[in-house]
Amino acid sequence: MQRWNNPNAVSFTAARTRFLDGTDTPRDLLERCLATIEAREPVLKAWVVLDLAGARKAADASSARYRDRRPLSPVDGCPLGVKDIIATADLPTQMNSPAFAGWQAHCDAAPVHAMRAGGAVIVGKTVTTEFAVGYSGPTTNAFDPQRTPGGSSSGSAASVGAGMVPVAFGTQTQGSTIRPASFNGTVGFKPTLGALPLGGVHPLSHTLDHLGVIGATLDDVWCAASQTSLGLGNPGHRFLTGAAASAPAPVKPRRLIHLHTRGWTEIDAATAAAFATFTAALVERGVRIISRDNDRRVAQLEAKLDAWVNEGLEILAYEMRWPYEAYVARHGTLIGERIRNFMQHAQSITPAHYERLLAARAAMQAEVRSVAAGTDGFITLPCSSIAPKDFQFTGSRTFLAYWSGLGFPTFSLPLLAIDGMPLGVQWMGLDHEDGKLAATAHWCLRELV
Amino acid sequence: MQRWNNPNAVSFTAARTRFLDGTDTPRDLLERCLATIEAREPVLKAWVVLDLAGARKAADASSARYRDRRPLSPVDGCPLGVKDIIATADLPTQMNSPAFAGWQAHCDAAPVHAMRAGGAVIVGKTVTTEFAVGYSGPTTNAFDPQRTPGGSSSGSAASVGAGMVPVAFGTQTQGSTIRPASFNGTVGFKPTLGALPLGGVHPLSHTLDHLGVIGATLDDVWCAASQTSLGLGNPGHRFLTGAAASAPAPVKPRRLIHLHTRGWTEIDAATAAAFATFTAALVERGVRIISRDNDRRVAQLEAKLDAWVNEGLEILAYEMRWPYEAYVARHGTLIGERIRNFMQHAQSITPAHYERLLAARAAMQAEVRSVAAGTDGFITLPCSSIAPKDFQFTGSRTFLAYWSGLGFPTFSLPLLAIDGMPLGVQWMGLDHEDGKLAATAHWCLRELV
Repeated sequence: MQRWNNPNAVSFTAARTRFLDGTDTPRDLLERCLATIEAREPVLKAWVVLDLAGARKAADASSARYRDRRPLSPVDGCPLGVKDIIATADLPTQMNSPAFAGWQAHCDAAPVHAMRAGGAVIVGKTVTTEFAVGYSGPTTNAFDPQRTPGGSSSGSAASVGAGMVPVAFGTQTQGSTIRPASFNGTVGFKPTLGALPLGGVHPLSHTLDHLGVIGATLDDVWCAASQTSLGLGNPGHRFLTGAAASAPAPVKPRRLIHLHTRGWTEIDAATAAAFATFTAALVERGVRIISRDNDRRVAQLEAKLDAWVNEGLEILAYEMRWPYEAYVARHGTLIGERIRNFMQHAQSITPAHYERLLAARAAMQAEVRSVAAGTDGFITLPCSSIAPKDFQFTGSRTFLAYWSGLGFPTFSLPLLAIDGMPLGVQWMGLDHEDGKLAATAHWCLRELV
Repeated sequence: MQRWNNPNAVSFTAARTRFLDGTDTPRDLLERCLATIEAREPVLKAWVVLDLAGARKAADASSARYRDRRPLSPVDGCPLGVKDIIATADLPTQMNSPAFAGWQAHCDAAPVHAMRAGGAVIVGKTVTTEFAVGYSGPTTNAFDPQRTPGGSSSGSAASVGAGMVPVAFGTQTQGSTIRPASFNGTVGFKPTLGALPLGGVHPLSHTLDHLGVIGATLDDVWCAASQTSLGLGNPGHRFLTGAAASAPAPVKPRRLIHLHTRGWTEIDAATAAAFATFTAALVERGVRIISRDNDRRVAQLEAKLDAWVNEGLEILAYEMRWPYEAYVARHGTLIGERIRNFMQHAQSITPAHYERLLAARAAMQAEVRSVAAGTDGFITLPCSSIAPKDFQFTGSRTFLAYWSGLGFPTFSLPLLAIDGMPLGVQWMGLDHEDGKLAATAHWCLRELV
């Protein structure tokens, strides 16, 4: 197996151990990040706006706390990129939309507030596609400026892949965290729906939107996700299971279901071969791989998932009606065509149909839980290939819409490489088993070297 | 029974029948409303800002549609007041907080969008207490300028009571719709949690906040609530049951549970006597009243409700952390003391405790459903008295926090009068039985004259 390796990766949790023993400081870590930003930003274009003065001030305050051996939380001193649909009190939030040019939110979004309260250092706002669903931004891929970074959390994934920051917030409604995480060789995490707060994050679809966390390592991702959950909570929802300062201890999975949903018929030979070496490496280590080839129930589940998955687009269109109908009414063609088309389509969805869509999703969740019983989760590709050479198209949502639509947790683990470009592995579990899933992901990242 | 009668009440649904037969127009209705506003606003102080030009333009457009026999929806031409924590695209939204002085939202809140899309006429923004939980505004009671209008939807209830508008939006987290509705002799409706959309409504507590509708008549309330639900939906939630252009046909309730929760030990003799004449009138009409006196299960339920009800304040404090922690951090004492005290208290609530509070609420809901089986709902007082002569205190939340905390639907029906002041009756049902509840409320309003 050709294992991906990212020499640029900057880990916060690794640096934190040095903060604690006095051999490094948050300010020094920040300066290394800023040096990388200065060197690479002209080509990468990952940032909409940077706050150098604010970040240095926050890093100095954090350095002083570590000197006094009183860090505020496990994320104290963590440089953080924030996708530009997530509100910040001291920087504009512009949604990559001319309708929001220069717009200033009244306060930090809930996840930003939780991180800042824990001492994290907000470096700036990262490029998003228009409202996380429309036109692409200018960002390039961290490993090839001719390739897309993926979207919609383009700048967050590219900046982490390039070593500009150890952690960045993205969001995912269909595939916006896992896809760019895979394309930029980073760990991407889309938790159980509701496990992380979304207050102040510009909405697309209230029953499909997730906060996503993209990081250099699993520990970085887990540490930031845990602070975001425990630091504030998400009204009406349970907290992230297994939340802690670092990832749960590795646990070897015994049985994993390899899902072959529709996209597998479209992939190229190199991608198929890379994934095959990965599953072979698992088998070699004694993991049992269950698939359509050896379990009829898996084939039936795949057929049901494929028949259901596009209903997510109906839910998305209907739930986008507010605020996008109001935006289109006010701003007309300042709002991108894809969004206007969604609003057009939403007109045809009746309340009764929408209620059926919600019921069908609940039934699909129950089906997946039932087939998953006795296993340690699911694996599949996160995308149909490495990042394509195409900037209009930030990558297919095939492979991604399933676990997003279910609201179940999924990681992209940066394990594979093709022609020097990264390709992730999608590592998927059941709702509220995020901690269990992180433990097996931890095993996989450690074992498959 | 001394039946409340409001000569000032202006009904939209009554006017609508005249719009349809050409004997009245939305512009004429609006002008009658504006004349009342002009006459009474100097004393009532129900409005933060009015949009006379915008309202006249919208009313003229609506008049033209009725002339062409093409109204957009059953609320076309309905003059509407909007509580000033609910966003509007063309008027500031100021939360009765100096921290939001002059603040302008980017678009209409979801309920305003749904009403405007249906042709409703937005007259202006109504006075709220600070963020619907803190300091009171200047509004007086519609029937006695020496008395409080109740809060937090003070201006919405007072303006409807005074006949300035037929319908106004409020909100309710603890008692903010039902209490002022009772104090101002209007119909108040707090639906099942989630039945009406809250996008763009400034949050207090995501699991306790409801949109409330206050109107001159049950038909007015139902028509506006129905348009707000069906016109847009609320992501992830079922629609308002029984939604339609007018209230469901009257249905006589056979058995009602009369709840005597804690507040009943604190009320005065006149209030107790007024409610007793009401229950006697029900009995006279063949409705069976079940209470602690004739059913041991009711007494047990009351004890459980009383032991549980204050947990709502814990949930409120914890869920207020975002955005109010961020506001206090930024604005300090510009944020009122009561809110700062909530934030102080929230510090002591752990994630585990919060999860227990949610579980306890779910258990309480199940308990109420079980005791309600075979009955047609619950009745109790909405407040401990008619509106008090005290402007600092907009009224007790005793009686109100129960059905609010459960997320179950409740009406205040303007049935009683004491010394020329109105007193409502709280008419309560089970979740997602809003339509059934409106049908029995309709019977009650029609029958008890």
